[in-house]
Amino acid sequence: MPLGERYGGDKSESRYCGVETDFDDDMPNLLSFNIHGGFDFVIATLHAGFSSDAQMDPNYRPSLVDDDTSRSHALPFAGSDLVLSPSQWSSHVVGKISSWIDLDSEDETLRKDSEIALKQEIAWASHLSLQACLLPTPKGTSCANYAKCLNQILQNLGSMQLWLRIPLEKSEDDTDASSPDFMGEGHNDSWELWNSFRLLCEHHSQLSVALDILSSLPSASSVARWFGEPSFLTNARGYPCLSKRQQRLTTAFFDHSIQIVISGQPVHNIPLGASESNVDNNAEGGWRHPLKSYLDYVAFLYQKMDPLPEQERFEFGYRDYLQSPLQPLMDNLEAQTYETFEKDTVKYSQYQRAVAKALVDRVSDENASSVTTVLMVVGAGRGPLVRASLQAAEETERKLKIYAVEKNPNAVVTLHSLVKLEGWEERVTIVSCDMRNWNAPEKADILVSELLGSFGDNELSPECLDGAQRFLKEDGISIPSSYTSFIQPVTACKLYNDVKPLVSVSSCSIKSHKDLLHFETAYVVKLHRVARLAHTQPVFTFTHPEDLSKTSNQRYKKLRFDILSDTGSSLIHGFAGYFDATLYKDVHLGIEPSTATPNMFSWFPIFFPLRTPVYVQPGTPLEVHFWRCCGSTKVWYEWCVTSPSASAMHNTNGRSYWVGL
Amino acid sequence: MPLGERYGGDKSESRYCGVETDFDDDMPNLLSFNIHGGFDFVIATLHAGFSSDAQMDPNYRPSLVDDDTSRSHALPFAGSDLVLSPSQWSSHVVGKISSWIDLDSEDETLRKDSEIALKQEIAWASHLSLQACLLPTPKGTSCANYAKCLNQILQNLGSMQLWLRIPLEKSEDDTDASSPDFMGEGHNDSWELWNSFRLLCEHHSQLSVALDILSSLPSASSVARWFGEPSFLTNARGYPCLSKRQQRLTTAFFDHSIQIVISGQPVHNIPLGASESNVDNNAEGGWRHPLKSYLDYVAFLYQKMDPLPEQERFEFGYRDYLQSPLQPLMDNLEAQTYETFEKDTVKYSQYQRAVAKALVDRVSDENASSVTTVLMVVGAGRGPLVRASLQAAEETERKLKIYAVEKNPNAVVTLHSLVKLEGWEERVTIVSCDMRNWNAPEKADILVSELLGSFGDNELSPECLDGAQRFLKEDGISIPSSYTSFIQPVTACKLYNDVKPLVSVSSCSIKSHKDLLHFETAYVVKLHRVARLAHTQPVFTFTHPEDLSKTSNQRYKKLRFDILSDTGSSLIHGFAGYFDATLYKDVHLGIEPSTATPNMFSWFPIFFPLRTPVYVQPGTPLEVHFWRCCGSTKVWYEWCVTSPSASAMHNTNGRSYWVGL
Repeated sequence: MPLGERYGGDKSESRYCGVETDFDDDMPNLLSFNIHGGFDFVIATLHAGFSSDAQMDPNYRPSLVDDDTSRSHALPFAGSDLVLSPSQWSSHVVGKISSWIDLDSEDETLRKDSEIALKQEIAWASHLSLQACLLPTPKGTSCANYAKCLNQILQNLGSMQLWLRIPLEKSEDDTDASSPDFMGEGHNDSWELWNSFRLLCEHHSQLSVALDILSSLPSASSVARWFGEPSFLTNARGYPCLSKRQQRLTTAFFDHSIQIVISGQPVHNIPLGASESNVDNNAEGGWRHPLKSYLDYVAFLYQKMDPLPEQERFEFGYRDYLQSPLQPLMDNLEAQTYETFEKDTVKYSQYQRAVAKALVDRVSDENASSVTTVLMVVGAGRGPLVRASLQAAEETERKLKIYAVEKNPNAVVTLHSLVKLEGWEERVTIVSCDMRNWNAPEKADILVSELLGSFGDNELSPECLDGAQRFLKEDGISIPSSYTSFIQPVTACKLYNDVKPLVSVSSCSIKSHKDLLHFETAYVVKLHRVARLAHTQPVFTFTHPEDLSKTSNQRYKKLRFDILSDTGSSLIHGFAGYFDATLYKDVHLGIEPSTATPNMFSWFPIFFPLRTPVYVQPGTPLEVHFWRCCGSTKVWYEWCVTSPSASAMHNTNGRSYWVGL
Repeated sequence: MPLGERYGGDKSESRYCGVETDFDDDMPNLLSFNIHGGFDFVIATLHAGFSSDAQMDPNYRPSLVDDDTSRSHALPFAGSDLVLSPSQWSSHVVGKISSWIDLDSEDETLRKDSEIALKQEIAWASHLSLQACLLPTPKGTSCANYAKCLNQILQNLGSMQLWLRIPLEKSEDDTDASSPDFMGEGHNDSWELWNSFRLLCEHHSQLSVALDILSSLPSASSVARWFGEPSFLTNARGYPCLSKRQQRLTTAFFDHSIQIVISGQPVHNIPLGASESNVDNNAEGGWRHPLKSYLDYVAFLYQKMDPLPEQERFEFGYRDYLQSPLQPLMDNLEAQTYETFEKDTVKYSQYQRAVAKALVDRVSDENASSVTTVLMVVGAGRGPLVRASLQAAEETERKLKIYAVEKNPNAVVTLHSLVKLEGWEERVTIVSCDMRNWNAPEKADILVSELLGSFGDNELSPECLDGAQRFLKEDGISIPSSYTSFIQPVTACKLYNDVKPLVSVSSCSIKSHKDLLHFETAYVVKLHRVARLAHTQPVFTFTHPEDLSKTSNQRYKKLRFDILSDTGSSLIHGFAGYFDATLYKDVHLGIEPSTATPNMFSWFPIFFPLRTPVYVQPGTPLEVHFWRCCGSTKVWYEWCVTSPSASAMHNTNGRSYWVGL
């Protein structure tokens, strides 16, 4: 049964808890024992081996079996598809592959036996319709032959998942850049092992990692890398009584929708309940599963987690879901989109504060009743900035005349209704026009706009405001007065895999173009299963008003990231992008993580993928280049990596992704 | 006029020599001066700039020009398409792009001017139908913005080539693995600069490198990397009187079809001829081009090169030309193919030596007249091994009975004619049968076969000989008795680019499959423009006869290559493969470079490409894995790299490339 209900409705897999069991040839009993004991699923050896009396032998190896016998009983088993129904197998049992398997042994016979056994056991699990199999930890530091066999299997596997068991360990003295021989003897960062596997198997979506949490934990940055990896499962030992760090880690894993499996024998006093001899009484109230205390502890940790805040609940369904950025200049927004964005009260109260400060700066208290400030809202939409500006005027007791300029004729209809409904006719003039073409009847003191995208300038705020600047007084104020984009390198295995399938279903035409498209596009996405590998750095800054004769909106920025030193090696799938805007003076607005405006939901981050993930060793800087390019009909970004080694140039001439003017 | 005629007919570009000229606005005169002076083409500034009196100004920069003027005269020029005919421009002039251009300057205005000028000048050269433009050397150690602009240009360029000028230099104390920041201050290996360019521009086939040879040369291994790069041109200064190393280098460049351009002012005494004031008399016999001595010296170096040996002449047309390996088991060879291979006298004389030695070992002199040795040629083709075996018998005065087994019924026809023609009916029995299925009437003393491919076992010699072993006596001899494949990592830009276009023209279907195919196929190829980066290492060995109950023909080999220490960084496009076979005792046969049998032409090397080239820094080992996999209907290889970082697995399950059983 699930660990509990979390307020706010975490419907993720982490509600379920499994248990790793010893081999038992009575699978129905094993299952009933553990499910009644409170677990949601078991990880069970299916296939422990074969000996002449039809008992299972965990040390079974194909080459040790008499030839004739092995031929007639090719598949030793722990329970056929008759002892449990297919739905029981598939919903409650994860297959555990024989742990003696060692595909990279120096012993050639052992290697060959291992390959035969691995293929047989996975074929059997697949026949039973299991959802997943747990694969044994690679034995040494080399894993190429193991990966080669898995990759062969993955090419022909149905929908079953393979979970590769990896211990969560990393020696801290191994962050030395001078030993790049990571596959050599000195290798003891288990993430390296996983990374090699995943690269050799080309990020196969059915291959995930099952982390074994050991008693000592590596550094926080090193552990954080795993948050960017495909769904894994924590194999928690040593409950109850985890250290504070282990508790925090477990909570962080829950937060990333990761399941827990309890493994091993009880090593603590069990406060209540019967001994293991009472197994057969498992229907009775007095009986407790021997690991029940551990399960209760996990449930306790789960239930005591803070409830999801409202914003997280709202955004839950968007986690790691890739969306194309808006094309606000080319497309008109729909009413629903306006409505969603208008609900962001935090954003508009920041705007109101900014307009209020600007009004006070613009008009002294003495002149408050005599001077009327001219304010233009460019891109007024259905009027939220008009409302915020009027409220700012009321709050500061300044006189205000507003022009609300909007290019979308559908929004203008709503705007007219709003003005009439609110009785703003005296103060608000509606202009149905593209701000870049409007001939304003007078010049403005204050220009207010909300044209920013997730990456700041990516919805062409610079180009629009350059056009609008014509009707701003020379000493006029633009709100926002400036904005800056930021990026940081991330491990984002799920996003990378989500971009990849888009490639393979792309229709035919000029292949070289179609294939690139999705890897050269920026996506708006609520980042969740992501490892952030370095602090953000600023990319492009735009300031308004600006001396237009001197500057263009083209930009070029070279950035050097130093991966956090206790991380170890890492794999960069792309860059998370954010913005921060100064609305007016100290009033800012933004999603850059370290300074993000709380409880604002209008923007998710942006994600710039890399066509080929970049492997970075400790101590090696990551050098990245971003360009903002402007053509006559479009604006686009190009990006590349030049260190540790050069990538391909992405999105040359905006061939894959651009924003239309 | 060309540098001369080389015996054996080198028809490569290196016969031609160019000259770099100063700017001159009288292009017809400039051209005639240099062509009459003996050069084949000029490298000329087209576009030196613009000033009010229509003279060219080498310091011209767009931002320094008065706005109105620059608009009306957007394109300064050195001669329009009217002063020379299109064919003159295209056959004799290489455009030289302004050398002040610096696209990675810290000065933003200079960067922007550079971008405008670069695009204008290349557009103009393209309008004149020039074959190529020479691009200035990147100024600093960073080149990302330069590469970004070039890449934008390359996407829309017609057929014109761009030659990036790079000085041939590398500081020897920079081979320290602990400074991976190759783009940083300490960077002084010009190959790194080129490598970044080429990766950022995705190996674009129209981007090549023009090497400036300076007075001091880097180490031999470091220079040898350039032999794997796309056709470049040597800018030789300091002639006459090159050091021995410079002479050898020049010769090596000639050998790789590389053109020479002479640049700079004469700095030596000119023994004969007129001064520059005689320019106008260039039609007269007494006049000499001021750089004629240098040209003569280059021609001298060219002409004194050793003539191409016969084998090289024969193979000249195959240089770097990718061929699919044979499928000898599935397909029957054509008569022409047999005929070509039968001409390899060296190969058959090695076989004859091996058979002779085996006969002598098998039958003592005393028994020579009484004992008849049974020899089976499996895969007899049109009979060359039958002939070699009979000659060996004659030479050693042993009695021989031969069974000639051949599965191709067409070849069997020829075989019958041959036996009749030569009167071998008594000694030779022809068997039209696949050796794997033949029921031999007696057992053989000696089994002779020539089933080896470029990679040894890649034409399934192991599988065939395992089948034939049934009819070999227990103490019988197999010729060959063993064979081993070898690989070495190579830079092979041309081969990589030749594999790549195959990808883009592939027809539509399941993309992920089609795209991989060509990068997961091994090719037979006469390697020429290749840099061999490490010594070869053995991969798989097969021995015959073999205890078939104990061994399979599956193989797995892990190899670690240390790139030659004075090389610097390098880019691995794939692996060159070879074989060496022991025919009998000390008689061997093979193409492994260090032990290759001289004057044998039956095998070109094999090339295993990598889907993504691997960048290796000095001191970092390259770890490679090769598998030989056997299924019920086919045999295939899989391969991958695991260090410096893991590649994808290549050819999983033989999905792209396999040899049919």
